[in-house]
Amino acid sequence: MATATLTIDLNAIIANWRALDAVSAGGTGAVVKADAYGLGASRVARALALVGVRHFFVASADEGADLRHALGPGLEINVFSGHMAGDTDMINDMALTPMINSLDQMVRHMESLPGHAFGIQLDSGMNRLGMEPAEWAALREIALAQNPTLIMSHLACADEPDHAMNAQQLNSFVEMTQGITAPRSLANTGGVLLGPAYHFDITRPGIGLYGGLPFTDAQPVVTLTLPVIQCRDLEAGETVGYGNIFTATRPSRIATLSAGYADGLIRAMGPNLQAYAGDTPCPLAGRISMDMIGVDITDLGEDPKSMEILGAHQGIEVLADAAGTIGYEILTSLGARYTRRYTGG
Amino acid sequence: MATATLTIDLNAIIANWRALDAVSAGGTGAVVKADAYGLGASRVARALALVGVRHFFVASADEGADLRHALGPGLEINVFSGHMAGDTDMINDMALTPMINSLDQMVRHMESLPGHAFGIQLDSGMNRLGMEPAEWAALREIALAQNPTLIMSHLACADEPDHAMNAQQLNSFVEMTQGITAPRSLANTGGVLLGPAYHFDITRPGIGLYGGLPFTDAQPVVTLTLPVIQCRDLEAGETVGYGNIFTATRPSRIATLSAGYADGLIRAMGPNLQAYAGDTPCPLAGRISMDMIGVDITDLGEDPKSMEILGAHQGIEVLADAAGTIGYEILTSLGARYTRRYTGG
Repeated sequence: MATATLTIDLNAIIANWRALDAVSAGGTGAVVKADAYGLGASRVARALALVGVRHFFVASADEGADLRHALGPGLEINVFSGHMAGDTDMINDMALTPMINSLDQMVRHMESLPGHAFGIQLDSGMNRLGMEPAEWAALREIALAQNPTLIMSHLACADEPDHAMNAQQLNSFVEMTQGITAPRSLANTGGVLLGPAYHFDITRPGIGLYGGLPFTDAQPVVTLTLPVIQCRDLEAGETVGYGNIFTATRPSRIATLSAGYADGLIRAMGPNLQAYAGDTPCPLAGRISMDMIGVDITDLGEDPKSMEILGAHQGIEVLADAAGTIGYEILTSLGARYTRRYTGG
Repeated sequence: MATATLTIDLNAIIANWRALDAVSAGGTGAVVKADAYGLGASRVARALALVGVRHFFVASADEGADLRHALGPGLEINVFSGHMAGDTDMINDMALTPMINSLDQMVRHMESLPGHAFGIQLDSGMNRLGMEPAEWAALREIALAQNPTLIMSHLACADEPDHAMNAQQLNSFVEMTQGITAPRSLANTGGVLLGPAYHFDITRPGIGLYGGLPFTDAQPVVTLTLPVIQCRDLEAGETVGYGNIFTATRPSRIATLSAGYADGLIRAMGPNLQAYAGDTPCPLAGRISMDMIGVDITDLGEDPKSMEILGAHQGIEVLADAAGTIGYEILTSLGARYTRRYTGG
């Protein structure tokens, strides 16, 4: 088989959720948008539901509908993009809870689905989604009379604990929600780590569940193992791959691995990445191509059957640094051709 | 609906194939690996089959099996990774043609599927896949006696017409295939453009079909339109998005678009990208986040319902430059959450 294997440790996700839940002052939900950051929302959410998670968060109604099929009835599925035009039937049929972002959405929701659960998303300064203070002031009494299930906002700089924006957004959120008895939510993973002042009634960890920063104590969740298609000897002076980027400086042995940037192994990582044979790191040889990666196994002394590119030796943050991005993007880029194997849960 | 729409113009793919076929000295196949570079192998291959393509190329037997389901029996599906351990049943049941890369694969193939069609992949210098000259010299007579359907190799530097590697690989391929009557194939898209000396019996364009360089005359194939979730006013000094990267220098209006790096809009592109409202480009405001993108629409004078991020105004090569990568990776990154709409074909 020339297919790489992505192993997702559901027990690690559960342990990460429990660790964040243990420090959360109130309840703890789980963000499973973008297919649970690329790891499979159905499997991840079912595993989390079994250990007591009751509040799930997705980006769009489409994602919510898929998740409802996986979870069945009863658990709360909150949709960050709110009640968009065209989503009414899906919100109704799949019992989704839109986070209302604007007057327009509020009118749409109350006219089309009176009595149907909804939350409110406030903009506390990120200027991306949610009602502005003035809009909210005008709508507040009407909205609260309909018993929203959640009043939420989102932090822009929670990954940087010392950023002044955090306290500024906290103050803004407190001001906008003063005297409200509906459950409130502000904290993503970074917000959980900022301390109880940020927690309110429900926290919403995402990246921390999946082993990413800023949750430094997170258990690693993913392991990616690539099969070796072929090994070959090179004489000094021979080149490997597109553009002849790698030139052998000595008699060398090169392994060709089956996966590439079409599988989300970001092309820019190439020069900074290693592939592991057991505990032994081997440098990449040449560019990451669409479906293949060359590795210099000269010093290994044997031909491996497979090599690890992501796992205990080299986590998502190492790959993120190699690509000049963040762990989130490493996860959401993980490709569709991998055989996904789930352990634990 | 908060879902972005990716429109794939099958007529443009057909036109690109015809243009490359017109300059190919012999026959012309089509590379549809990596789900046709992210555009949907089933739809793309069916459209190409209807205009006469008879030779398709995929990376792995898994991809070949999916393609066989889409195409039905009869057309040739060639597998670059060859006959890997564990793939025998799939190769047999799905009538795939493995490109044999090594002595090991040759033995496996002849022992497990005697008489089943196969090709030979030679390494003419890229050192990634295929038999080395010495290995091939030892196997050549035995292999040719079994009537391979194709003898192929792959160019490492065909995107750079002046690179000395091109002639070197051509010479190596000619030497290794001297006197052979089986059909031969060397040229990817770049190889087609290098001229008839590189064409042999079958060319194998990939990226050129999908509108990418080095085929400068390619018709653009993809259009990506993102819905606007929300628009809001900012005062000077207010910030947008994660890390407060964008600060409004004047009273501004910001649109939030529904799509982000989880949809393959590479995070690194942010500072260099525009979103188009009709013909009017608007700069991005703040970082590309997982599911959303902020756009400064202050100078637009109206709130758009959707904006184009990829299309006639801003093609895959512009996005590639913005991300510091190549058009191939822009295509293969295109995400799973888009509504895919096919036109033409």
